[in-house]
Amino acid sequence: MSENKLDSIQFPRDLRKVTQQDLPQIAQELREFIIDIVAVKEGHLGASLGVVELTIALHYVFNTPEDKLVWDVGHQAYGHKILTGRKDVFHTNRTLGGISGFPKMAESEYDAFGTGHSSTAISATLGMAIAAQLTGNTTRQHIAVVGDASIASGMAFEALNHAGVTDTNILIILNDNAIGIDPSVGALKAYFTKVKLDEASEKDNIFEALNFNYTGPIDGHDLDTLLSELNRLKHIKGPKVLHVITKKGKGLRQAEENQVTYHAPGKFDAKTGDLLPKGTEKIPPKFQDVFGKTMVTLAKKNEKIIGITPAMPTGSSLKYMMEAFPTRAFDVGIAEQHAVTLAAGLASEGLYVYCNIYSTFLQRAYDQVIHDVCLQKLPVIFCLDRAGIVGEDGATHHGIFDISYLRCIPNLIIVAPRNEIALRNILYTAQLGLNLPIAIRYPRGRGTLLDWELPFSELKIGQGSLLKEGTDVALLTVGPIAENALEAIKTSSASEKVACYDMQFIKPLDEELLHHIFKNYKTIITIEDGAIAGGFGSSIAEFSVKHQYSNTIEILGVPDVFLEHASVHELQSIAGISSEAIQKTIELYV
Amino acid sequence: MSENKLDSIQFPRDLRKVTQQDLPQIAQELREFIIDIVAVKEGHLGASLGVVELTIALHYVFNTPEDKLVWDVGHQAYGHKILTGRKDVFHTNRTLGGISGFPKMAESEYDAFGTGHSSTAISATLGMAIAAQLTGNTTRQHIAVVGDASIASGMAFEALNHAGVTDTNILIILNDNAIGIDPSVGALKAYFTKVKLDEASEKDNIFEALNFNYTGPIDGHDLDTLLSELNRLKHIKGPKVLHVITKKGKGLRQAEENQVTYHAPGKFDAKTGDLLPKGTEKIPPKFQDVFGKTMVTLAKKNEKIIGITPAMPTGSSLKYMMEAFPTRAFDVGIAEQHAVTLAAGLASEGLYVYCNIYSTFLQRAYDQVIHDVCLQKLPVIFCLDRAGIVGEDGATHHGIFDISYLRCIPNLIIVAPRNEIALRNILYTAQLGLNLPIAIRYPRGRGTLLDWELPFSELKIGQGSLLKEGTDVALLTVGPIAENALEAIKTSSASEKVACYDMQFIKPLDEELLHHIFKNYKTIITIEDGAIAGGFGSSIAEFSVKHQYSNTIEILGVPDVFLEHASVHELQSIAGISSEAIQKTIELYV
Repeated sequence: MSENKLDSIQFPRDLRKVTQQDLPQIAQELREFIIDIVAVKEGHLGASLGVVELTIALHYVFNTPEDKLVWDVGHQAYGHKILTGRKDVFHTNRTLGGISGFPKMAESEYDAFGTGHSSTAISATLGMAIAAQLTGNTTRQHIAVVGDASIASGMAFEALNHAGVTDTNILIILNDNAIGIDPSVGALKAYFTKVKLDEASEKDNIFEALNFNYTGPIDGHDLDTLLSELNRLKHIKGPKVLHVITKKGKGLRQAEENQVTYHAPGKFDAKTGDLLPKGTEKIPPKFQDVFGKTMVTLAKKNEKIIGITPAMPTGSSLKYMMEAFPTRAFDVGIAEQHAVTLAAGLASEGLYVYCNIYSTFLQRAYDQVIHDVCLQKLPVIFCLDRAGIVGEDGATHHGIFDISYLRCIPNLIIVAPRNEIALRNILYTAQLGLNLPIAIRYPRGRGTLLDWELPFSELKIGQGSLLKEGTDVALLTVGPIAENALEAIKTSSASEKVACYDMQFIKPLDEELLHHIFKNYKTIITIEDGAIAGGFGSSIAEFSVKHQYSNTIEILGVPDVFLEHASVHELQSIAGISSEAIQKTIELYV
Repeated sequence: MSENKLDSIQFPRDLRKVTQQDLPQIAQELREFIIDIVAVKEGHLGASLGVVELTIALHYVFNTPEDKLVWDVGHQAYGHKILTGRKDVFHTNRTLGGISGFPKMAESEYDAFGTGHSSTAISATLGMAIAAQLTGNTTRQHIAVVGDASIASGMAFEALNHAGVTDTNILIILNDNAIGIDPSVGALKAYFTKVKLDEASEKDNIFEALNFNYTGPIDGHDLDTLLSELNRLKHIKGPKVLHVITKKGKGLRQAEENQVTYHAPGKFDAKTGDLLPKGTEKIPPKFQDVFGKTMVTLAKKNEKIIGITPAMPTGSSLKYMMEAFPTRAFDVGIAEQHAVTLAAGLASEGLYVYCNIYSTFLQRAYDQVIHDVCLQKLPVIFCLDRAGIVGEDGATHHGIFDISYLRCIPNLIIVAPRNEIALRNILYTAQLGLNLPIAIRYPRGRGTLLDWELPFSELKIGQGSLLKEGTDVALLTVGPIAENALEAIKTSSASEKVACYDMQFIKPLDEELLHHIFKNYKTIITIEDGAIAGGFGSSIAEFSVKHQYSNTIEILGVPDVFLEHASVHELQSIAGISSEAIQKTIELYV
């Protein structure tokens, strides 16, 4: 076997010393390096495998970090990280104190802009390109690598619309693999397919219509073609698009064949590519599957039920309904704004629309939630998956702001079901007719119950309940964080003194229950899997002030910092809402 | 003079009884009706004048309200309102208890969807069209009227991308007048210009690339052409675009010639079209002009200053900087998401970027504020004009949620300057280097000072100040609402007991000052021009709880309802933050 060439490369300057004919070997080694580590440490796989050649070509041709390179979304940037000084720490990827799974400015000067959510790269890159113009730097290059699913998102179009009328040195690499996390959808995807099949004439070009110099499509795994095109484009001024065709998962057979599964496959055998066998014991379901399977059950009985996901059919488990009722469940692509207002339009016709958007992505459609849904009292049912701390995906993916940003919106019901059964029942209740919009927040990961598919029962809106009696201190929780609270009570030195209430509804608050609690307990500790500022505990403080109670109140939740990546338990400990941390707080008051 | 034909038309069914040759006369009368009332009552003028013929043609050809008609943005819908049962109440437009200046579902069955912010119409209409398909209604028509500035916004593109792969009965009227409130910008506008000049070949069509049946451009003031095209398209299935060329302000010379001024001209002479002469006495400046003029002053001295506005150069007064420094101030079109991330990209290069977005429109870029700016600690300077209650524009335009939705974001400074001088000084301070992002919120309308262009002085971040001493009750204000508080104290029965503090910074709070206040006053009344839930007062409640104070706290602000349209003073009275309402609250505690 020939000498390992990747060993000698720590930074792009090392890469640039290698001859062009050695690059395919480096690509092979880089691919193996990624596979070997992700197989054991987990993380995003397919996207980075798909851009190995592109990553090498970009750093080989362009003078990074002086030239600016921005990876849209960023989960395809593992190769980039490995080639830019982080090979030796790559095994710490996504762990506490380790490197981030996404580009991050604070981590490396080669990460020109932090990403995580899609479709931001063109705007950011254009900003840098304009800055270069203003400071008289006419040679610097600015490259945004954007997937075909991401470029269909509205924000990317806004940036194209602006960039097209500038004369900045901006090069957009359209990384067209016909898939985001799930297969791409929409008219633009259909158009790209026509382009690839050579059915769209050269004149009929969307990018040229927007004033870009367009090249492609070219094979994104052919290093020679990539290098020659990038070298050519380096000398062309103004906004440019290079359309590159890649295969997600390239180089690992299973990842190429099962692109959705191998997006982030968990642990697998690096040699064979096979996923490691899962245990056979029965375990509680993922919350997303409680949603997905309940949707199918409900949709069978109620033909007015509609499901919408912006590009997350697998992650949300709406795929089950899409398979069972293909005309009533839609993947609209990475288009949260459209998803929400489409839901509003459907709801205006009397349909029960379940719009499933991860908490962190609903931030993309905030205005639409306010105006198109809540102002008009259209009873859209928002299902906010991944609410709360999500763990290894880190700062860009935690769903910790939703309570604060939704609580100020009139007409909106906000609920955090405590477990699988409560989630099922609120999904059921919502299609009985609430006449108001509702946001149902539930976390990433699994619940705690093995038997959760019980007969439905209607939930009373705005009603909380007692989970455990006590005398002096009342814990008030919303959502599954109640499990931590109950565990904390169990291990406390005076558990008989500590009560726990599942408030369930963040809005409207169960004011009758709250008055009972404020009158019967000296100390109230609120606990939420979300930001403290403006959150659930804040609403309890508002309640206390309004009714002039003088109880001691302690608000537990995520403090005013961006939490990084780590396990959920590690991050809960940092935030003070792990069972151990809650127990320590309890001891202060018993 | 011939008989007035508009008199006999209350609803579209009346219009449809008229012969086609009488329609031009009705158009003329409708135009005069709009002019006569808007001249006296104020409101949006130019946009509605531009679509008089289109409005008539749509209601003549389509079977509204069964057929669904959605007006994007909605400020062009005056003719629509007049022809759909609201002619007799049109003089109440935008007043308390009167009709809304925008389409509103609760107001009329002819308003198929409420609008106010741009680019929502295609999504909403597509939702209705899909609902029709699902319920087996194959004949109903669904029409979205979208301006050329609005269709360039990302959300509209997301909807086109989805609609293009459906076979729904959706007709998009592209109302191309080359102007939003200010002239349209961007590559798509340039493309439309080419289309109009017949320089784009038929093949080179963006809408056809997205799978739409495209017709146009046609003259939007030619009723015969409009009717024949609409009648033809009514019988064509699937997604369609009709490109219509109109002139904003059509039919009133001054409005045609000065389209920006006559977008919402205030009072004018209905006969001559001339604006009514303004008084000659010196009056305090608009806050937007304090911003706009200060930007020019600062930009002269600091060449690293950049200005960005998404489609509001006139409304924000950034136009002054655009004129003085055309390479350093940008109108990026209706593209709030892009505007924020572009600002982040520019700030990453060490520039001082002032990104001016109305409070209500920043809701469109919430995720970008969180991730692209605050997470990365990029010191973008957000200037939030129209923060607080805006008055006659109503529910879709009040800027009352920003404190709540921004307060939960780590790293962000939030400030509400009390007057013109404070606004000027914080604009000055921001370019001295804060190393953190800042949101500066200020209201619509005028300040209170005649002499405001004083020498700059640096503000200390997080510092509040005493405005008036007292003994028992402390009013805590942020922003110009302090004037109401001071007035209330003046008229109260025990003004010597009541202090007033300008807290100025919502984040970080002036904790030292707060401790002093909590220790020295029995009662604390917080007052803000914004939503109570999660707002400034809520942060004071959180502070009180955290430090276990037992003072009585009263939180004044906008309660948990959507405020409708009325004068600012009327709405402040309803919300309980007018000086009279504050005075009444003071009386409860002195």
